[in-house]
Amino acid sequence: MSSTEDPDYPQIILQYSSGFLVSKVMFTACELGVFDLLLESGEPLSSDAIAAHLGTSTTGIERLLDACVGLKLLAAEMTQEGALYRNTDISNIYLTKSSPKSQYHIMMYYSNTVYLCWHYLADAVREGRNQYERAFGISSKDPFGAMYRSEEEMLKFMAGQNSVWSICGRDVLAAFDLSPFRQICDLGGGGGALARECVSLYPNSTVTIYDLPKVVQVAKERFVPPEERRIAFHEGDFFNNPIPEAELYILSKILHDWDDDKCRQLLAKVYKACKPGGGVLLVESLLNEDKSGPLETQLYSMNMLVQTEGKERTAAEYSKLLEASGFRETEVKRSGKLYDAVLGRK
Amino acid sequence: MSSTEDPDYPQIILQYSSGFLVSKVMFTACELGVFDLLLESGEPLSSDAIAAHLGTSTTGIERLLDACVGLKLLAAEMTQEGALYRNTDISNIYLTKSSPKSQYHIMMYYSNTVYLCWHYLADAVREGRNQYERAFGISSKDPFGAMYRSEEEMLKFMAGQNSVWSICGRDVLAAFDLSPFRQICDLGGGGGALARECVSLYPNSTVTIYDLPKVVQVAKERFVPPEERRIAFHEGDFFNNPIPEAELYILSKILHDWDDDKCRQLLAKVYKACKPGGGVLLVESLLNEDKSGPLETQLYSMNMLVQTEGKERTAAEYSKLLEASGFRETEVKRSGKLYDAVLGRK
Repeated sequence: MSSTEDPDYPQIILQYSSGFLVSKVMFTACELGVFDLLLESGEPLSSDAIAAHLGTSTTGIERLLDACVGLKLLAAEMTQEGALYRNTDISNIYLTKSSPKSQYHIMMYYSNTVYLCWHYLADAVREGRNQYERAFGISSKDPFGAMYRSEEEMLKFMAGQNSVWSICGRDVLAAFDLSPFRQICDLGGGGGALARECVSLYPNSTVTIYDLPKVVQVAKERFVPPEERRIAFHEGDFFNNPIPEAELYILSKILHDWDDDKCRQLLAKVYKACKPGGGVLLVESLLNEDKSGPLETQLYSMNMLVQTEGKERTAAEYSKLLEASGFRETEVKRSGKLYDAVLGRK
Repeated sequence: MSSTEDPDYPQIILQYSSGFLVSKVMFTACELGVFDLLLESGEPLSSDAIAAHLGTSTTGIERLLDACVGLKLLAAEMTQEGALYRNTDISNIYLTKSSPKSQYHIMMYYSNTVYLCWHYLADAVREGRNQYERAFGISSKDPFGAMYRSEEEMLKFMAGQNSVWSICGRDVLAAFDLSPFRQICDLGGGGGALARECVSLYPNSTVTIYDLPKVVQVAKERFVPPEERRIAFHEGDFFNNPIPEAELYILSKILHDWDDDKCRQLLAKVYKACKPGGGVLLVESLLNEDKSGPLETQLYSMNMLVQTEGKERTAAEYSKLLEASGFRETEVKRSGKLYDAVLGRK
């Protein structure tokens, strides 16, 4: 799909209209295991063979495979017996479950949860609030109560966040030299992928993952191996329970979940707990100061409307929140990727 | 969003993931009337003014407007009082309700009906059939019974199809010189936009729109002005009732709704009714012969899976269906846009 414009033919409008078709084709090929099968098979397969392996209809899978070819997620080779399909490099790396950089889990979260919440975007804009009630029939009052409404949903969310850090984690942690901070607390650290990147990049650091008891339990059981001695856990609700002392607090994708009042309240607690000379690292997707972009961040800010009580912010807005809580010498590093880093010092 | 590839950063995957966010931002701005308001106001407006006029939350509308700026559907001008928003040319032409080329109705059909059906794409691929039962709790057995399940849904569908012909109709009708055919029957002509293009392009022709009684009734009441004397109507079900004699039959986006058997059955009836020397014009989105593209058509073929009993086909597949029913001298014209034309002669 090209974005060149014939004034009599709105290519860009048609491309935007088809956006959801594109998303769902990719998500569905992931969900059905197309990329995993083609990685494991080690040789190109026909659509009939793929349908048989995956237990799908032949008429459905053939079209799905062809659409993936159109999206360059698969390549097709014509033979006398018909088309044979294989993964492209990008699918092997990002769309198979077993790859270290797999985005499979975030795709599943997008496809099964976020997609349905976004069906009610018009209502979210009218009402200015999240849409768990319409999408899932559950109260909107406590967004994390809604997001973690079942262990399965919580697992999908945690695994999804971990996939994000597998491609974005190192950049945001390397944006500043964090080696002077030995004792780090990752507030809302969830599945622990960012903490693991952190102890890998800064081998002399220890990271305490602070999260809700049920999140910590799953992180221990599923995501963080017990032999990783540089990672510890602390169970609590950071709004209602004390925050332990540390040299550096990481708040990655935390402030964007909350309104300004809640952010100030949380940052004030963090400031109080922080050792003198310590700091706080915000990891967020930063809007341009005039909010003209980046497009991904504008879209994520709409997602915060649909799913949380927060929004995406500009660097100046985060600096202001940090400074209102006592932090100073705020520095901003844009990664050029999805997530950026803001460092404040006590 | 660029599609250049950093091997460590899957830009294209992220773009595909965000496709549904992009679609819904555009659909929602249409649904809430943002583009209509900005067209009518004749001057740029602040987000507060837009929220007040449209009765939405300020926090929601501001983000929606900024995302539309990111998509170049709106332009923002910074003033001392904050941003002022105005339509871009493409929004004035295609996204306002009152424009002759408005795509508003097809957007609403996509946003409210197709989007929800596509939530069940994985089930459609597994089962090889449409998803009205999961999406709307109605039987999948009769796709048009499902699509026309209420007068409101039928109206949305008819208005949506009419918007498609406002941008694609002239090209497919001008692909061949149809002026020798004076007596034309548009089978499943629905809201009549293609018939109106036809009598405008070929002033000596008359077009009979053949469709289900309830469709004809709405077409007469809502879409085709009674003073248009070159357009007549014929009520019936073309699978179960006779087809009247004509010199040319137009089947636009009809065969793609049905499997090969039903297509052959319908074309055989058309051939029998057709005057000697007459013909049939198929208007469809054509797949490449090796099914490698175009991407839009591949995606539409998946939509046929999710919503109908049909699929998109290649030119050779349509020619074969035509020839099996007796038509000959098949000619194919690709428009370079969404819909192409295939002419067969008796």
